[in-house]
Amino acid sequence: MLVVMEKGIPEKTIQACINAIEKRGYTARPIPGGDRVSIGILHNTGSVDAAHFLGLDGVKEVIPVTKPYKLVSREFKQENTRIKVGDAVFGDGSLPVIAGPCAVESLEQVLSIAGSVKKAGALLFRGGAFKPRTSPYSFQGLEKKGLEFLAAVREETGLPVVTEVMDVENFDIVEQYADVVQIGTRNMQNFSLLKRAGKSDKPVILKRGMSATLQEWLMAAEYIMAEGNNDVILCERGVRTFVRHSRNTLDLSVVPAAKKESHLPIIVDPSHAAGVRDQVISLALASAALGADGVMIEVHNKPEEAMSDGAQSLYPDQFISVMDKMNAIHQIVEQK
Amino acid sequence: MLVVMEKGIPEKTIQACINAIEKRGYTARPIPGGDRVSIGILHNTGSVDAAHFLGLDGVKEVIPVTKPYKLVSREFKQENTRIKVGDAVFGDGSLPVIAGPCAVESLEQVLSIAGSVKKAGALLFRGGAFKPRTSPYSFQGLEKKGLEFLAAVREETGLPVVTEVMDVENFDIVEQYADVVQIGTRNMQNFSLLKRAGKSDKPVILKRGMSATLQEWLMAAEYIMAEGNNDVILCERGVRTFVRHSRNTLDLSVVPAAKKESHLPIIVDPSHAAGVRDQVISLALASAALGADGVMIEVHNKPEEAMSDGAQSLYPDQFISVMDKMNAIHQIVEQK
Amino acid sequence: MLVVMEKGIPEKTIQACINAIEKRGYTARPIPGGDRVSIGILHNTGSVDAAHFLGLDGVKEVIPVTKPYKLVSREFKQENTRIKVGDAVFGDGSLPVIAGPCAVESLEQVLSIAGSVKKAGALLFRGGAFKPRTSPYSFQGLEKKGLEFLAAVREETGLPVVTEVMDVENFDIVEQYADVVQIGTRNMQNFSLLKRAGKSDKPVILKRGMSATLQEWLMAAEYIMAEGNNDVILCERGVRTFVRHSRNTLDLSVVPAAKKESHLPIIVDPSHAAGVRDQVISLALASAALGADGVMIEVHNKPEEAMSDGAQSLYPDQFISVMDKMNAIHQIVEQK
Amino acid sequence: MLVVMEKGIPEKTIQACINAIEKRGYTARPIPGGDRVSIGILHNTGSVDAAHFLGLDGVKEVIPVTKPYKLVSREFKQENTRIKVGDAVFGDGSLPVIAGPCAVESLEQVLSIAGSVKKAGALLFRGGAFKPRTSPYSFQGLEKKGLEFLAAVREETGLPVVTEVMDVENFDIVEQYADVVQIGTRNMQNFSLLKRAGKSDKPVILKRGMSATLQEWLMAAEYIMAEGNNDVILCERGVRTFVRHSRNTLDLSVVPAAKKESHLPIIVDPSHAAGVRDQVISLALASAALGADGVMIEVHNKPEEAMSDGAQSLYPDQFISVMDKMNAIHQIVEQK
Repeated sequence: MLVVMEKGIPEKTIQACINAIEKRGYTARPIPGGDRVSIGILHNTGSVDAAHFLGLDGVKEVIPVTKPYKLVSREFKQENTRIKVGDAVFGDGSLPVIAGPCAVESLEQVLSIAGSVKKAGALLFRGGAFKPRTSPYSFQGLEKKGLEFLAAVREETGLPVVTEVMDVENFDIVEQYADVVQIGTRNMQNFSLLKRAGKSDKPVILKRGMSATLQEWLMAAEYIMAEGNNDVILCERGVRTFVRHSRNTLDLSVVPAAKKESHLPIIVDPSHAAGVRDQVISLALASAALGADGVMIEVHNKPEEAMSDGAQSLYPDQFISVMDKMNAIHQIVEQK
Repeated sequence: MLVVMEKGIPEKTIQACINAIEKRGYTARPIPGGDRVSIGILHNTGSVDAAHFLGLDGVKEVIPVTKPYKLVSREFKQENTRIKVGDAVFGDGSLPVIAGPCAVESLEQVLSIAGSVKKAGALLFRGGAFKPRTSPYSFQGLEKKGLEFLAAVREETGLPVVTEVMDVENFDIVEQYADVVQIGTRNMQNFSLLKRAGKSDKPVILKRGMSATLQEWLMAAEYIMAEGNNDVILCERGVRTFVRHSRNTLDLSVVPAAKKESHLPIIVDPSHAAGVRDQVISLALASAALGADGVMIEVHNKPEEAMSDGAQSLYPDQFISVMDKMNAIHQIVEQK
Repeated sequence: MLVVMEKGIPEKTIQACINAIEKRGYTARPIPGGDRVSIGILHNTGSVDAAHFLGLDGVKEVIPVTKPYKLVSREFKQENTRIKVGDAVFGDGSLPVIAGPCAVESLEQVLSIAGSVKKAGALLFRGGAFKPRTSPYSFQGLEKKGLEFLAAVREETGLPVVTEVMDVENFDIVEQYADVVQIGTRNMQNFSLLKRAGKSDKPVILKRGMSATLQEWLMAAEYIMAEGNNDVILCERGVRTFVRHSRNTLDLSVVPAAKKESHLPIIVDPSHAAGVRDQVISLALASAALGADGVMIEVHNKPEEAMSDGAQSLYPDQFISVMDKMNAIHQIVEQK
Repeated sequence: MLVVMEKGIPEKTIQACINAIEKRGYTARPIPGGDRVSIGILHNTGSVDAAHFLGLDGVKEVIPVTKPYKLVSREFKQENTRIKVGDAVFGDGSLPVIAGPCAVESLEQVLSIAGSVKKAGALLFRGGAFKPRTSPYSFQGLEKKGLEFLAAVREETGLPVVTEVMDVENFDIVEQYADVVQIGTRNMQNFSLLKRAGKSDKPVILKRGMSATLQEWLMAAEYIMAEGNNDVILCERGVRTFVRHSRNTLDLSVVPAAKKESHLPIIVDPSHAAGVRDQVISLALASAALGADGVMIEVHNKPEEAMSDGAQSLYPDQFISVMDKMNAIHQIVEQK
């Protein structure tokens, strides 16, 4: 943390600021500059709250220097975290693909889709049993029934299943059925849910909040790791911007940026970002080229009859073609 | 909902789209235009999901026409909802002020601040007992102890108390102590929490999500009302933008916009939006001029020692001056 | 500028970075921290380009500490700049109001509106002769004829006139007719135009770019001042965000923030931000409460027939009422 | 254009609105809905300004249905526009690459870089002679001298050259030296410059404005085409968002979206979006996978000594590797 003082303030104002820093248990080191003094806050373990010093007399600005995260950081742990689920490994340089419908609608539907995506090479199956919906009047998911259908998919196809958990109340039951538990974008800073996920022994896919900075996202992952669960997979799914030609703006630069800051694997969900099928295909290929640790794609056997998000779901045929291209691209990118 | 078709597509593609609409139970009305056909979807009750039709053959765009909310809408209920808490009424044209520290830190602290803000004219006291913090290593609030201190404030000063609830687990206890329950910005789309709040008999302050559109915010309020609780107070607290000179960007235009769409009262929290004291003062006055139904301001007796958000907390003296000016401004604005 | 190095890098990498800094003519001062070294760049005059050092070996981050602007900064010149135009002074604590239609449409139109707004207390008249329009097929303004009509307004009413200049080619003629030259939001970083404005002896209203940070905006003003023109009036007019209930999001917090950083006066244009009449009224009152150095409002005698931006133009009667309230609010705010 | 009326308004208010529409020369067609009337505006040629109707009595909302652009639209011209420059064709399904330094610094510098990038397969050379800089005190380019050095590059290597024009004043000279004229992000809505570019016989690269919607961007291209120049190449270079880990957010979804709306070729500039080298590499590969019509990349022989944007410039060796991978990826993507 660097506390930048205003120009030409008296020595005693600077001293008062130093005292305020030390009163909170930190080491203050004044750094005389060209025309103003800055004060470094040293040896702090963990994050220092800028707000503590921002309002003090003579303080112009407070600039964080070190990052507040620890367990998630690449500086804490150099080598990539690898998370094995079924035949997939996230974080080892491969490109595992998770596919399936937005929502579990019926046993027939999930079995049909699961068969298709497995044949095309998907290594995990996804489907929502508890659905976060903007409107209280929209279809909210099949809930427990949906979880049972997912279990049937696993039994039938051998594919591990990924599904979203929306609250602490249903965590136990979701955890019991799912191989990977997903925390959705709207819950990225639902800290109670993060703490519960930290006590789970299932890997967690943590979607990025709609307007979360990389730092806030990693701090959300830190909440999970701080409780003891190291198996966190980050998932970029688009952020909210002024843009109107896609539902959200897929921020692909966050993939290399996250890999630099953190050892956690990061995958991309182009389906929710785009919201329309043709963009999904393009962005899926881009994600493979980017070096993501996996891709999650919505596939539906009858998108035009889907109960939610039909417009962004690929047809099984499209998915086969995307898979082939993604795999070929991945081979090129991985070559040294 | 208006489904806009591509130019020059064959009649049978249009018919297929009409069939798809009617298959979902809606009435389709084709509207021939200058050089393309659009299809209106009529008589739908509640929201129609654009995604259902976006991916169909020949569809260029799907444009929502009616809004998806019902209970919260001004069209559903013309007159303003008025919510009475202690001596305050939200929604009757008055300007009740809620004041207090970011976090409850000690009994002495809250009693001291409560005394000050009551004398200055605040009608409700606020203070966080459960604190949503970006970092798991930051102070997370005094929890139950904090609620007890708030109860002591109420007993001592007669001021009703407002405090945040972060999860369903602690809803019962927060509800038991609080006069008004607050749902924070990070939980605006925590649908499980919204449903629980809908079953409460306490008024709810629903803060706007960091990047929520007005429509999403009203739909979150709809979740609460749909469960039976009509006493929802909207609270604008700044949204996330590219701007860096303030913590968030206070979107004051949402106040007249929300009042046009909804009968619910809407208040403004300039403290969290600004993040620094001098901006808070300016924005509080602006909020009074704007016709908001109330203002929520952070006040601390010793901001430089606050455990969180000290930089944005007003000194008691500043609060007195702001109160005087806000009240004078409010009188001017209310004159016809 | 603070160059933050990665953890645990060898001494010689740090030395190489120091050499690179000094090779560019700056003074490097290493600051050993708890677990990493940072290097301060001192005694630099003017801005240092972070990009110079960001890609060097071992560099984790480059953090600007001092601001790049000089002439515009409050540290350079403590007292407020006051700009006198006719009976108005921008920057002396008063609240001069600029009013008029979006576009000059006819002599009759501007004379009628100017008469109304003068009677209501406006001190300057605005109207566009050269109109920046998103579509090449939209009305582009009356050009020279429009300037002549503005001159007629000045002659008839004594009000100084404000009008926009869109390019260097037409600067001479606009400058000849206008009392204040306006640079629009789309031209805020048209550096050639800024330089030309810097050579003018007319005051310049510099509108904030649609997505400009405060720093970029002040640097645009610096371009004008660096050429010798000190009479720059900043004008906030809303920024682009994800928000859809208003055309742009009026960022009122930029007013206190700009006043802290700079001695230049700053006014607010609520009309372009809002885009709809009822929001304009609310935001105009908020701007007065905020301590802005002036307000610019669109008024039209027949908004429903306006050639552009009719929906955001106030009726003359509404303007009278807004003026009365703004003045009353301003008196309250100015009281110490 | 669809004018949505409020619920339950009297017939004569609806009629007044119809009259207002027809007074402006449009055809109004009322569309009775379930609980409100909407009025379609038909047979309009070109764009209708929503603002004309937004403020009328009884009008709840005005929703544009048709897009305002004509010449640029895919509906106007089905087949892709192909623009041939030297050995490159933009828009024919190939992936031409433009490479070179941010700024022309010396003859030796550009010759050295041009030699490298040509060998690696770049088909055009880029370099700035007139530099738009945020600060008036930053290096502003070598201007005419820079253009001469670019001409020398062309002579020596045979590569056509791309360079930016910042204003109408220098358009003649830039046009004389350049093979392709670039209009930068800050000038995307400098309408005078767009009109001048429309009169040029050189192809124009039109960079997307920092916060431009796809529609605004296409309208800017429409300005150029409306003056007679059909050779417009769109260039995505990142937009401004809340994100802080990259300089701008590269919006790759705009590539498929623009191709759907328009017949113009669209290329991607990952360098300016990212601002740091390692992100540039990842995003360049993603752009190739996405189906872009070209990529523009900054390459410098000595990035650490570059006069601008060194941190985002690739080393020649990195560029060779990126080229190889981009070409391999492009082959995969193009396969049917």
